[in-house]
Amino acid sequence: MTKLQAGYLFPEIARRRSAHMLKYPDAQVISLGIGDTTEPIPPVIASAMAKRAQGLSTFEGYSGYGAEQGEKRLRAAIASTYYDGLGIEETDIFVSDGAKCDISRLQLLFGANVTTAVQDPSYPAYVDSSVIMGQTGIFKKDIEKYGNIEYMRCTPENGFFPDLSTVKRTDVIFFCSPNNPTGAAASREQLTRLVQFAKDNGSIIVYDSAYAMYISDDSPRSIFEIPGAKEVAVETASFLKYAGFTGVRLGWTVIPKELLFSDGSPVAKDFNLIVCTGSNGASNISQAGGLACLSSEGLKAMTDVVNFYKENTQIIVDTFASLGFNAYGGLNAPYVWVRFPGKSSWDVFAEILEKTHLVTTPGSGFGPGGEGFVRVSAFGHRENVVEACKRLQQLYR
Amino acid sequence: MTKLQAGYLFPEIARRRSAHMLKYPDAQVISLGIGDTTEPIPPVIASAMAKRAQGLSTFEGYSGYGAEQGEKRLRAAIASTYYDGLGIEETDIFVSDGAKCDISRLQLLFGANVTTAVQDPSYPAYVDSSVIMGQTGIFKKDIEKYGNIEYMRCTPENGFFPDLSTVKRTDVIFFCSPNNPTGAAASREQLTRLVQFAKDNGSIIVYDSAYAMYISDDSPRSIFEIPGAKEVAVETASFLKYAGFTGVRLGWTVIPKELLFSDGSPVAKDFNLIVCTGSNGASNISQAGGLACLSSEGLKAMTDVVNFYKENTQIIVDTFASLGFNAYGGLNAPYVWVRFPGKSSWDVFAEILEKTHLVTTPGSGFGPGGEGFVRVSAFGHRENVVEACKRLQQLYR
Repeated sequence: MTKLQAGYLFPEIARRRSAHMLKYPDAQVISLGIGDTTEPIPPVIASAMAKRAQGLSTFEGYSGYGAEQGEKRLRAAIASTYYDGLGIEETDIFVSDGAKCDISRLQLLFGANVTTAVQDPSYPAYVDSSVIMGQTGIFKKDIEKYGNIEYMRCTPENGFFPDLSTVKRTDVIFFCSPNNPTGAAASREQLTRLVQFAKDNGSIIVYDSAYAMYISDDSPRSIFEIPGAKEVAVETASFLKYAGFTGVRLGWTVIPKELLFSDGSPVAKDFNLIVCTGSNGASNISQAGGLACLSSEGLKAMTDVVNFYKENTQIIVDTFASLGFNAYGGLNAPYVWVRFPGKSSWDVFAEILEKTHLVTTPGSGFGPGGEGFVRVSAFGHRENVVEACKRLQQLYR
Repeated sequence: MTKLQAGYLFPEIARRRSAHMLKYPDAQVISLGIGDTTEPIPPVIASAMAKRAQGLSTFEGYSGYGAEQGEKRLRAAIASTYYDGLGIEETDIFVSDGAKCDISRLQLLFGANVTTAVQDPSYPAYVDSSVIMGQTGIFKKDIEKYGNIEYMRCTPENGFFPDLSTVKRTDVIFFCSPNNPTGAAASREQLTRLVQFAKDNGSIIVYDSAYAMYISDDSPRSIFEIPGAKEVAVETASFLKYAGFTGVRLGWTVIPKELLFSDGSPVAKDFNLIVCTGSNGASNISQAGGLACLSSEGLKAMTDVVNFYKENTQIIVDTFASLGFNAYGGLNAPYVWVRFPGKSSWDVFAEILEKTHLVTTPGSGFGPGGEGFVRVSAFGHRENVVEACKRLQQLYR
């Protein structure tokens, strides 16, 4: 535990933001930092949750413990909505209170004695949960890396997809696409190579598709679109960034029945044991919301929410482009990944905060490969995003 | 993982119940088994959740990510309601989606290299999560125990409190009071001895007080009523069995700032890292319910729910007593612990299910010390409890 560096990135940003607000109590601070949704939950979805909550006060509407794996109808709806034709069934879906929680459960499944690869940069929960499980060596300050973690460098130069010929074999490969923070979605051809790489090495891919609905081009929405992926991959996903469920909490993990450990036993069986021992499933009220999300009205409403944030993304991309920056991402994710050549991410973060009262996220918080970049999140009210871009133009013009 | 025996107790009971219903499709099966609440959530509490859910569809009412540790107002209300005058503050409270989930998080905190003691019998999640963390040796079939777990035998003969002079020193001691399944609440004098034992041995007590509101006598409601407990104990608790929140999911864990590891670092600091890395807090809608639970109206409503189940308990206790059984518990917990001398728990479970269509819980599922007992839960609609007792009278008169 003492190995974990400086706590978790986002609490650290929250601390710095608070300190800034103490220093400038009258400043209108705008956060394009932690990737928190800002727009209200569509009424059709919120009403379904309100109805379920109110119904719990009646004999007919009351329900206690649900299935640890999630309600049957919701599991079926997730399978048919997001995995139609891919051979993923209701029983392969484990509903949870969010992908971050499931990543921790997957780490518990893998145990302390595995080796792990992550994209560099990537969402910090993969590495941090690996450290907590005791999988890693100490943090080496000079190279900003933990021992026993394979960092797969993703840069503009390699199209944000690692050169697999230089990647060491590991037991587990975390892969997030569309990627947080770079916003890059891997192509079908790239994912086919990744699946083959995992198959050749006997690795398990943990594929994080939390931003799949943000994809605009023809990149796969799920790893299971790749033939053979069901034998090498699990997939985590959630409603958080589609329906504004960051506070409501609802996600899921797909563990295909075809995925086996090297001794031939199904991974899903062990994951089920962990889920049953360490949880009682997601809140029944949140699950009612999930079902509403997957109704035809709900799907339309979620698409509207996603499109709203995508318009924000475009405004931010255009702003940085007009200022001469190299800004990546945006097309397939609600994140813009901006290069500041030769500068330290935390210095850029601090300068932007100090001079414009904008909270961003320093790229180096996502791994050493993020150094020299800053992540700008497109989650925000439109007027705040517009105002933030105005301040950036004043700072950098 | 392969060490874990036959999966988790309650899923196993659910499987047997399903098989029974296939065999007797017309039988009216009554469950006094898994301890699931059956009575509707009091309207004042359900309405607060419905209001919060509906509010999430408005700009004023929307909220995204909350604090991982729980909303400030809820943490403060828990501290002042349940720990008034005990020196437990808002910042010592970590809100979660339930005590079972927190037990898993605590195990992650302790890691694989600790020794653990549990009451025998006790709630299976302690041992099962310990197995999953890799803390235990193999399961020894002949004695029905895992290696590296210290089973503290609790029997009618020792007043359901272990003889600490025979208990080996361990790093962690799980202690549930009122106990699930025996229904026994430890007295102030017994808990004082337990705290001293932990202090002498440098052990951490994980005190599970999930049923504290069911206490009728003057047993302590919290381990922190015992002087010195803040230096040796954490406490898990929840709204599940008070407000019917088994499906809604809301609990909390108290980690006093006075509790330090042997190197002097605060336990709360590491627990906070685990909470921040592996979760995003409980659902905001559930937390609105928790706040309503702790209003004066909510507290009264929860007391009514608890009293309803306590009346059920009395009906069950009276039934077994009238049939000449030794039935324990009941006074301080919604569980009745019935002795069937010389019989196997699973045989008794099977006989009761086969002949009366009642689901109970075999005592041996809670540890070898539960052999020869059956746990009867008092959670049920009144007419079902009365009908169940009628059937038991027909079977055993």
